[in-house]
Amino acid sequence: MKLSKNNLDQRLDHLYDVIIVGGGAGGLSAAIYLQRYKLSCLVIEKGKGRSFWMQDLRNYLGLSPETPGREILKHGQEHIVELGADHLRAYVEEVRDEGETFAVKVKVGKADSIYPVFRSKYVVAASGIIDNLPHLEDMQNVYDYAGYNLHVCLICDGYEMADKRCGLFVGSEGAINTAFVLNWFTPYITVFTQGKVEVGEAMRQKLRDYGYPLIETPIKQFLGHDHEMTGVELEDGSTIELETGLVAMGSHFHNEYLQGLDLQWKGGNLVTDSMCRTSHPRLFAVGDLKEGLNQVSIAVADGTLAATAIWREIRKDSAPRRWEENLIGAVP
Amino acid sequence: MKLSKNNLDQRLDHLYDVIIVGGGAGGLSAAIYLQRYKLSCLVIEKGKGRSFWMQDLRNYLGLSPETPGREILKHGQEHIVELGADHLRAYVEEVRDEGETFAVKVKVGKADSIYPVFRSKYVVAASGIIDNLPHLEDMQNVYDYAGYNLHVCLICDGYEMADKRCGLFVGSEGAINTAFVLNWFTPYITVFTQGKVEVGEAMRQKLRDYGYPLIETPIKQFLGHDHEMTGVELEDGSTIELETGLVAMGSHFHNEYLQGLDLQWKGGNLVTDSMCRTSHPRLFAVGDLKEGLNQVSIAVADGTLAATAIWREIRKDSAPRRWEENLIGAVP
Repeated sequence: MKLSKNNLDQRLDHLYDVIIVGGGAGGLSAAIYLQRYKLSCLVIEKGKGRSFWMQDLRNYLGLSPETPGREILKHGQEHIVELGADHLRAYVEEVRDEGETFAVKVKVGKADSIYPVFRSKYVVAASGIIDNLPHLEDMQNVYDYAGYNLHVCLICDGYEMADKRCGLFVGSEGAINTAFVLNWFTPYITVFTQGKVEVGEAMRQKLRDYGYPLIETPIKQFLGHDHEMTGVELEDGSTIELETGLVAMGSHFHNEYLQGLDLQWKGGNLVTDSMCRTSHPRLFAVGDLKEGLNQVSIAVADGTLAATAIWREIRKDSAPRRWEENLIGAVP
Repeated sequence: MKLSKNNLDQRLDHLYDVIIVGGGAGGLSAAIYLQRYKLSCLVIEKGKGRSFWMQDLRNYLGLSPETPGREILKHGQEHIVELGADHLRAYVEEVRDEGETFAVKVKVGKADSIYPVFRSKYVVAASGIIDNLPHLEDMQNVYDYAGYNLHVCLICDGYEMADKRCGLFVGSEGAINTAFVLNWFTPYITVFTQGKVEVGEAMRQKLRDYGYPLIETPIKQFLGHDHEMTGVELEDGSTIELETGLVAMGSHFHNEYLQGLDLQWKGGNLVTDSMCRTSHPRLFAVGDLKEGLNQVSIAVADGTLAATAIWREIRKDSAPRRWEENLIGAVP
């Protein structure tokens, strides 16, 4: 059921089989499978994750290419609640290992917050990442275009950028190399550093060799209308026309709540085995938080794998069910 | 575009980037990604694969639990053709390695068949498996219930069988062990061998200990109406009431066309790496044909992985695209 401040008391004494941190594609898929394995789970969702911002999910089999991310999330939430999962809108502050169980401390409500603790045998970390965006004085100007034709994922949206004049917005010199993958889709690339990146001579020469302008003047604002970005205005008043953009400024990993545990990391990503198990035997990671492609299809499969591994383990540790009425005369 | 006998001539001189054998969930997902990577692909679909028979796809995020498999297939076919993929209804007879390319020989049309050969750089084997079903004189009687409440997948449909009187239909003694996983969902299990399986004393005792009857009399027919199986009638005229059933008689692997290649197998499954590449560097396998869980979500992710690995390789081997009009004065 949907939990809230008003009814979550009912679950404070309940030991869930699994608590899932994050209600994006990976977390929801895990919950569908777990409930169908007849296990109990709680999904804790802070809201506004990466898939919420995605305006068109164009590469997921079965959904129309115009499907917005928030629609799959809404659909999945209804699906898991129908299957008997609990769902709580809250922020996970800490996951503490108690030996046989995890204690998951959450913050509920932005005002008059409360801090209940839920318990489970397993935790699935499905809290993902969020892309860093160019930092302008008026961030609403960025939000107006991000996820529309100002993209954050080359694999998802390279196709949409094909042969268009594309701005590449970077936060480090290394990220400029994205241009030399992006050029599979379009060679009409202008690189923007906002003057915050030190660019060495070798990279400057490479950009010249490819004909990709490097703009180091800070950006004043994105230009456009109705969520269609048409260029940028720089601080010096000049403008540059664009038809699309790709932000390659790294990501923030939602992994703070795991810092008290002894886990194997690779950068911000959790290292997992082929069933999405981390180096902690009762903690799984799915989707963007683990190593691998940041794709909805991958997160959904990860949820399947993690749920199945957990089910197999819980099942093996449980007493087998016999058909009692057929056991008359059987040895007790 | 949709290919047929009438127009496939146009493609006989075309070298596809990828030919995908099988138009189920894995093959369609691979095609979506490949086309969006701006690669050319041909999907060859023989029809009536495992997902076609699935009446309800209950565990795939984003689709309603009543969605029939054939709906996701139809939707996916439209999606890939819109993206510019070719799609041909035909049967793949042989894949031959020509060194730099594969030659894929197909049979088109059941009557007046023709046998064209298509060529590609890569092949994705997405032809899957089909479940063996109990062999009765009137097979239509089996098809009336298979995929409805006579299930073939414990992971998908254990939930639907919960606490119901369930027939377990097996073709080997080993498969009887499925009962001791199925009992997570229901203990009211009756095992049917149709008298075709030699069951040792240890297994007989185990079944007695669990209270699961073993029926070795051959089945005459399934009973029921409107695709709802309600029991079986045995050859001796007696009947046994059931509410659901699980067929665990193994599968036929659609892998005959690969037998001329030197590949690493595990049973009927192709062994692959984490990107779904087989032991042949230009042959990938996705979905049920490779090792792992036989789930739609897994096949869809496999398609993503295989397509991405192929794209990365083709991209690295291609000349980089420069912005020519910005190169005036650049060293040629």
